Amino acid sequence: MPILKQHSTKESSKAGMAPGTLIGISETEPAKTIVNCIEFDDSSLQEYSIVDIKNLKKIENDGKIRWIEIKGLLDIDKIENLGQAFNIHPLTLEDSLNTYLRPKFENFDNYFFISLKYVFFKEEITSKQISIIVAENVIITISESEVPGFENIKQRIKDNKNKITKSGKDYLMYMIIDMIVDSYFLAFESIGDKIEDIEDNVLKNPDSEIMDQIYSLKRQMIYLRKITWPMRDMISGIRRSDSEMISQTTQIYLNDVSDHIIQIIDTVETYRDMISELREIYLSSISNKMNEVMKVLTIIATIFIPLTFIAGIYGMNFHFMPELGWALGYPATIIFMIAISLVMILFFRKKRWI
Amino acid sequence: MPILKQHSTKESSKAGMAPGTLIGISETEPAKTIVNCIEFDDSSLQEYSIVDIKNLKKIENDGKIRWIEIKGLLDIDKIENLGQAFNIHPLTLEDSLNTYLRPKFENFDNYFFISLKYVFFKEEITSKQISIIVAENVIITISESEVPGFENIKQRIKDNKNKITKSGKDYLMYMIIDMIVDSYFLAFESIGDKIEDIEDNVLKNPDSEIMDQIYSLKRQMIYLRKITWPMRDMISGIRRSDSEMISQTTQIYLNDVSDHIIQIIDTVETYRDMISELREIYLSSISNKMNEVMKVLTIIATIFIPLTFIAGIYGMNFHFMPELGWALGYPATIIFMIAISLVMILFFRKKRWI
Amino acid sequence: MPILKQHSTKESSKAGMAPGTLIGISETEPAKTIVNCIEFDDSSLQEYSIVDIKNLKKIENDGKIRWIEIKGLLDIDKIENLGQAFNIHPLTLEDSLNTYLRPKFENFDNYFFISLKYVFFKEEITSKQISIIVAENVIITISESEVPGFENIKQRIKDNKNKITKSGKDYLMYMIIDMIVDSYFLAFESIGDKIEDIEDNVLKNPDSEIMDQIYSLKRQMIYLRKITWPMRDMISGIRRSDSEMISQTTQIYLNDVSDHIIQIIDTVETYRDMISELREIYLSSISNKMNEVMKVLTIIATIFIPLTFIAGIYGMNFHFMPELGWALGYPATIIFMIAISLVMILFFRKKRWI
Amino acid sequence: MPILKQHSTKESSKAGMAPGTLIGISETEPAKTIVNCIEFDDSSLQEYSIVDIKNLKKIENDGKIRWIEIKGLLDIDKIENLGQAFNIHPLTLEDSLNTYLRPKFENFDNYFFISLKYVFFKEEITSKQISIIVAENVIITISESEVPGFENIKQRIKDNKNKITKSGKDYLMYMIIDMIVDSYFLAFESIGDKIEDIEDNVLKNPDSEIMDQIYSLKRQMIYLRKITWPMRDMISGIRRSDSEMISQTTQIYLNDVSDHIIQIIDTVETYRDMISELREIYLSSISNKMNEVMKVLTIIATIFIPLTFIAGIYGMNFHFMPELGWALGYPATIIFMIAISLVMILFFRKKRWI
Amino acid sequence: MPILKQHSTKESSKAGMAPGTLIGISETEPAKTIVNCIEFDDSSLQEYSIVDIKNLKKIENDGKIRWIEIKGLLDIDKIENLGQAFNIHPLTLEDSLNTYLRPKFENFDNYFFISLKYVFFKEEITSKQISIIVAENVIITISESEVPGFENIKQRIKDNKNKITKSGKDYLMYMIIDMIVDSYFLAFESIGDKIEDIEDNVLKNPDSEIMDQIYSLKRQMIYLRKITWPMRDMISGIRRSDSEMISQTTQIYLNDVSDHIIQIIDTVETYRDMISELREIYLSSISNKMNEVMKVLTIIATIFIPLTFIAGIYGMNFHFMPELGWALGYPATIIFMIAISLVMILFFRKKRWI
Ligand SMILES: [Mg+2]
Ligand SMILES: [Mg+2]
Ligand SMILES: [Mg+2]
Ligand SMILES: [Mg+2]
Ligand SMILES: [Mg+2]
Ligand SMILES: [Mg+2]
Ligand SMILES: [Mg+2]
Ligand SMILES: [Mg+2]
Ligand SMILES: [Mg+2]
Ligand SMILES: [Mg+2]
Ligand SMILES: [Mg+2]
Ligand SMILES: [Mg+2]
Ligand SMILES: [Mg+2]
Ligand SMILES: [Mg+2]
Ligand SMILES: [Mg+2]
Ligand SMILES: [Mg+2]
Ligand SMILES: [Mg+2]
Ligand SMILES: [Mg+2]
Ligand SMILES: [Mg+2]
Ligand SMILES: [Mg+2]
Ligand SMILES: [Mg+2]
Ligand SMILES: [Mg+2]
Ligand SMILES: [Mg+2]
Ligand SMILES: [Mg+2]
Ligand SMILES: [Mg+2]
Ligand SMILES: [Mg+2]
Ligand SMILES: [Mg+2]
Ligand SMILES: [Mg+2]
Ligand SMILES: [Mg+2]
Ligand SMILES: [Mg+2]
Ligand SMILES: [Mg+2]
Repeated sequence: MPILKQHSTKESSKAGMAPGTLIGISETEPAKTIVNCIEFDDSSLQEYSIVDIKNLKKIENDGKIRWIEIKGLLDIDKIENLGQAFNIHPLTLEDSLNTYLRPKFENFDNYFFISLKYVFFKEEITSKQISIIVAENVIITISESEVPGFENIKQRIKDNKNKITKSGKDYLMYMIIDMIVDSYFLAFESIGDKIEDIEDNVLKNPDSEIMDQIYSLKRQMIYLRKITWPMRDMISGIRRSDSEMISQTTQIYLNDVSDHIIQIIDTVETYRDMISELREIYLSSISNKMNEVMKVLTIIATIFIPLTFIAGIYGMNFHFMPELGWALGYPATIIFMIAISLVMILFFRKKRWI
Repeated sequence: MPILKQHSTKESSKAGMAPGTLIGISETEPAKTIVNCIEFDDSSLQEYSIVDIKNLKKIENDGKIRWIEIKGLLDIDKIENLGQAFNIHPLTLEDSLNTYLRPKFENFDNYFFISLKYVFFKEEITSKQISIIVAENVIITISESEVPGFENIKQRIKDNKNKITKSGKDYLMYMIIDMIVDSYFLAFESIGDKIEDIEDNVLKNPDSEIMDQIYSLKRQMIYLRKITWPMRDMISGIRRSDSEMISQTTQIYLNDVSDHIIQIIDTVETYRDMISELREIYLSSISNKMNEVMKVLTIIATIFIPLTFIAGIYGMNFHFMPELGWALGYPATIIFMIAISLVMILFFRKKRWI
Repeated sequence: MPILKQHSTKESSKAGMAPGTLIGISETEPAKTIVNCIEFDDSSLQEYSIVDIKNLKKIENDGKIRWIEIKGLLDIDKIENLGQAFNIHPLTLEDSLNTYLRPKFENFDNYFFISLKYVFFKEEITSKQISIIVAENVIITISESEVPGFENIKQRIKDNKNKITKSGKDYLMYMIIDMIVDSYFLAFESIGDKIEDIEDNVLKNPDSEIMDQIYSLKRQMIYLRKITWPMRDMISGIRRSDSEMISQTTQIYLNDVSDHIIQIIDTVETYRDMISELREIYLSSISNKMNEVMKVLTIIATIFIPLTFIAGIYGMNFHFMPELGWALGYPATIIFMIAISLVMILFFRKKRWI
Repeated sequence: MPILKQHSTKESSKAGMAPGTLIGISETEPAKTIVNCIEFDDSSLQEYSIVDIKNLKKIENDGKIRWIEIKGLLDIDKIENLGQAFNIHPLTLEDSLNTYLRPKFENFDNYFFISLKYVFFKEEITSKQISIIVAENVIITISESEVPGFENIKQRIKDNKNKITKSGKDYLMYMIIDMIVDSYFLAFESIGDKIEDIEDNVLKNPDSEIMDQIYSLKRQMIYLRKITWPMRDMISGIRRSDSEMISQTTQIYLNDVSDHIIQIIDTVETYRDMISELREIYLSSISNKMNEVMKVLTIIATIFIPLTFIAGIYGMNFHFMPELGWALGYPATIIFMIAISLVMILFFRKKRWI
Repeated sequence: MPILKQHSTKESSKAGMAPGTLIGISETEPAKTIVNCIEFDDSSLQEYSIVDIKNLKKIENDGKIRWIEIKGLLDIDKIENLGQAFNIHPLTLEDSLNTYLRPKFENFDNYFFISLKYVFFKEEITSKQISIIVAENVIITISESEVPGFENIKQRIKDNKNKITKSGKDYLMYMIIDMIVDSYFLAFESIGDKIEDIEDNVLKNPDSEIMDQIYSLKRQMIYLRKITWPMRDMISGIRRSDSEMISQTTQIYLNDVSDHIIQIIDTVETYRDMISELREIYLSSISNKMNEVMKVLTIIATIFIPLTFIAGIYGMNFHFMPELGWALGYPATIIFMIAISLVMILFFRKKRWI
């Protein structure tokens, strides 16, 4: 969804309702809800679509890892059924459906809830919310629509089902978080290019279009700040949750993700500082241009106004103006005018205006 | 009450009085005090108005939940009697009557005190203070005047008296807090619209009316910051109060409210940043306009001042000016003038002024 | 004392002296030292002036509360004697005499020391330092000069000696602190009025007098920040001092004072933000005015400079200028000039300058 | 040393050397090293110069307090020998010789190390580094050159050797620190005077010299911030060091020094805010002046340009210009010109430009 | 690598890959990987190049200190083999290869990982990443290319192998960190010189080239902030890691490094403040210049425009203009013009414009 919409919250549409009332809150038209599952252990792997959600209820602990991927928030019934099947709190489901949610981590008795924004660049920074529920036997992801990065993860699962099964479902959770975090680095590249473009132009052509671009970048940074800083609390929430759900091995990978998140926040802050710098340069460029305009006006006016005055003097029609009769009156006047101009020019040179 | 009034505190009117002196401190004319009660358990529900407050004294623990709603701060006697009936500290009553109070949570031996601002948008952000006293057998709310959102809560009680009775009076407290918190999301929508309006206009028509609007928004944000940040301490005060008054189930709902409060603060900060941006754009737009004005002046003046000078030369009345007698003097002069103009225009084009 | 003086510290006059050297450091001429005492229990009350300070030494614990009020810092000997009588550390006395001291709380073995600024508005914010020593049998206050609010407290003691004796001397301490804290609310009202005045004028008449007023307010805010923030540490120092000197009952009253102090700091910060806003508006108002001035100049110049040039052309004295002989030369020129003016006016209208 | 030099660090000259390599790092020419000692107990006092440093090695614990004062950093050998005599870590000696060191406290097994800046005002704020080593039997101070304040301390020792011996060498340490801290108050007075000067001039004569003065003050504040904030950590380091070296009595004096340091930091921050304010006023004064200049130009130009145009019209040489022959043509034109001027003046008055 | 490149992160090139995938991420062309080892104890020292990395596997604890220096990140295989030989986690190797990494410290079971930036000045601040792995028997450093400072360390090892062997490999680690930290002081000197240059020019010649230089410095400061602040966490990570790897003696040296890092951060902040000041001065210089330009224009225009008007009056061709026939008309007009000029000049002098 576009930036400006992302700033508003639309919680307003639920004011006064009971908590846990499930309504999809998103800017874009909600997409049809599709529920797929990928189920694997070290030797086998199955992908299938889930239609009859109520049968999901009893998943025995058969050593298999299951990732249920829900995409599209239109059919709230399906999501509600799924929530009941896995004993998910209505408030968690409500959060999953609210695409204005801040990134967060919440630890329930029987599952964790993680909410994150996947970002991509399409004219400007745009985001897609992904909710991850890590329960005992299953990982459930809920997203507004298809997430391109998921394909890549599925491929890696297929290629390494042995290794990933051994690492456990917490490693799968890590893979999903890591993919989302990586999406920021991709987006930063586009922003970095825009900053370089503006840098190249701001001193040469400080026109109002550049101001517009700077403002657009600044707004995107405000948005990125808003969604990246909470990721720090989110990741440290996961790391600190002394849950048995996260193995020692995965902890090291989460440290790495945590590094990346700090690097993301660092980059957002750095870009923000650089954009502020650009605006300062823009403003001082305008001042410089204005100064130059004024100098041109002042030089021309200051040279010619006195000369025009002299010409005006000898354009007067007094009957008794002796100079008018002098043979050398005209050339002497012209020479006097040239002398005045030269004095002015020397004055401007001394002032370093020309 | 209007914003500017909201910034002042009017504590001054009580300087030098004994603590706990009950005086209604509010900007608007205080309204007549009305005391209503809604009393329910899983099977029955009664609504009635309380006139003789002294009889309230002994409420046996009959398993019923009671919500006493006081609206209007005119009849301080009534409020004082009620305070004595429920053993409320005079300082709490004083806080309830002071509509300039900062949102806060305070834990007394026999009750909690919660103070919050309900906001709504009516030309600009306006607030109404709501105090909530959560005692053993009863919830008491005190507000300056009728709070529209209360109707909705009462309706939900009537529809779900069974469920709410089971959840306990702490759940009712949650419902009231949640309704107040939701009022911010409704208000933000109006502010967001105003920001978008200004965004649309600031680059096109940076007139002083827009400055006025930006300033008005900025002031509202200063006010919102002032009343929203303390809500964070308030909610964490409730959550940390290891009181037996709050059940495990309600804790989860309070977490959700806490999320919303963080989101509210986030939005206030984001709007504040965006409004600051708007002012920057406004200022640079003015600079741009000024630059454009100066360019027009400079171009016109710089072209015509030298030409007028030349015309002035040949307007002089010297008797001996040979050029005046030349047959081609006039057309040559005109051509010379055109040549100068062209040089000037080329100069301006090179400078990218035209 | 006036603001600017209040910023300097005058500690310099004591550089190199031994610690505890008692010198009154204040801007204004120190007043003669007067020592009064009010002594009361639930049934009796006496007020008297203390002249022979050395006899004060042994106060038996007779259940009476004593408040010794010292006003005027001229007779340092008296204060020194009093300090010895009650076993007050020389550094405490030194602090009491230093009217540049930051608000603070210090816990000694046999007493607490509290230092606060009483403020009032007299053209600008002005302060008076009050030191409070809370010892086992007595409360001592030291102030530069008469404090108006003390009269009110004494009256309340006389009216409620029973209740106050029961509450203990810590309640008297609370009454004094509360009175000082209330002085800020009174001062804020005057500042709030000034801000409203400037708000009304800044958009209409942004002259340099307003800049002056804004600067004066800003300086007062810098001063208020400096003296209000430390009050937070002061009050929490008192509340945390797990002294048996403070009863459970008084703790609740101190919580209330603490609320007020936070509200004071909040108001200072809010006013500071609003004053900063006012300066921004002032500056953009000036820019707007400048823009308007430039537009008037540009419009007039841009219309008349070309016309004057045309008039200049036909004012040239070339012998052969066929147009001059045409019968319609003059009216045609005038019409041409009008046409040019209209084109210019349309251009300005398109640019929305007129 | 002058400010700008003080900002650089000159650590660079030691890059790549072994730690503890003793090289005097200072901007000014290092002075010859002189080592004096003052040795006293309650009844006797001796001052002498130390030449043969190696004999210092064994100082028996004879109840005497010794203060070894080293001034001048030229003879590094002497300092190195002294360090070995008292078992001082080479890194401590290195820090003592590095006059760019940040104020700090460091706790070694057999001594504390304290580093501070003594400041004084000589055109601008200038500092002199003083290192204090508090060992078991001795206090060693190391300074670039003579410190004027030391004379005063020595005099106080001579006058009160009894009292100071009883208080212990930690009290002597306090006296030295207190003297250094007091040097800031003296320097602030000069800065405060400069601020007042600028305040008086900035609204009247906002010329570029004032900008220069503001900038100079701002730079000095940047420097003062840099050296004052670390003093807070330094003093709390000493106070927290649960060393037996510091007696209960001296702790109270250190609290007082700590108060002064906070007051110093407060003053630096306040001055910094005030200087920022001054710059804002300077800038708005310039804008105001510019506005006034532009108004004068606009008024003159706007009145006379149309009049000159009219004069130009009747200066044209068309043969058929009926007005020229009218008897009242000239006076009517003059009256018309006056009328136009009056309209213009009314217009400017309405705009409140004149 | 140049600054702008250093801000981007290029993590993007690894988005979607498995963690621990080893790809060299750097801006410059990666150099061929060379692996050298220096191996010494108190009596012997050997330097050799390592070609067959797999034989490295078993290093017995023979009391020798080994420093393996890897330079150039082209041959990832070699680095991977080395990692396996010493049981280094793939994520650590990945970090070593990523030259955009933030300085950090990470504590693994069998080694520490330290990452730092070595800086140098070559037109602008440029950095080179150095990773240090401190394992049980060996220190491994990984750098993009040759690090000049390493030569110096090797020389010091050769000269003091006895002392360094006794101090242990943690002392060698300290020497490397210290050398890197010293590189900042060298770079600061160049920046300090640039700041002084700009300071000298900004008031005299505030042209746009200076703006460019200020912006370049500002950007370098943004970069330096980004890489210096994390060094604080890095060093305190090492100091707090209650590892037996760090001896008590080395701890004291690490304290010294920690001091230097704080001093580096301090200097970065100070330079940043000073550069901000420079920009403020630049902007106010421009305003001052503009003011001066406008004054010249206004003075000239305001004097001559009225005079030209008067000349225009007597240039009109009305038949009946009595003044034209007066013998003293011309000189009287000239005198009147001079009088007007003088009045104007007095007016400007009163306004202090000339
Ligand atoms: Mg934000
Ligand atoms: Mg990593
Ligand atoms: Mg990283
Ligand atoms: Mg990182
Ligand atoms: Mg940053
Ligand atoms: Mg900040
Ligand atoms: Mg930053
Ligand atoms: Mg929620
Ligand atoms: Mg939420
Ligand atoms: Mg949120
Ligand atoms: Mg922000
Ligand atoms: Mg402060
Ligand atoms: Mg209260
Ligand atoms: Mg309050
Ligand atoms: Mg408040
Ligand atoms: Mg604020
Ligand atoms: Mg605020
Ligand atoms: Mg702020
Ligand atoms: Mg003191
Ligand atoms: Mg103090
Ligand atoms: Mg202070
Ligand atoms: Mg500050
Ligand atoms: Mg301040
Ligand atoms: Mg950072
Ligand atoms: Mg050191
Ligand atoms: Mg240091
Ligand atoms: Mg330092
Ligand atoms: Mg800073
Ligand atoms: Mg900051
Ligand atoms: Mg600084
Ligand atoms: Mg700063």
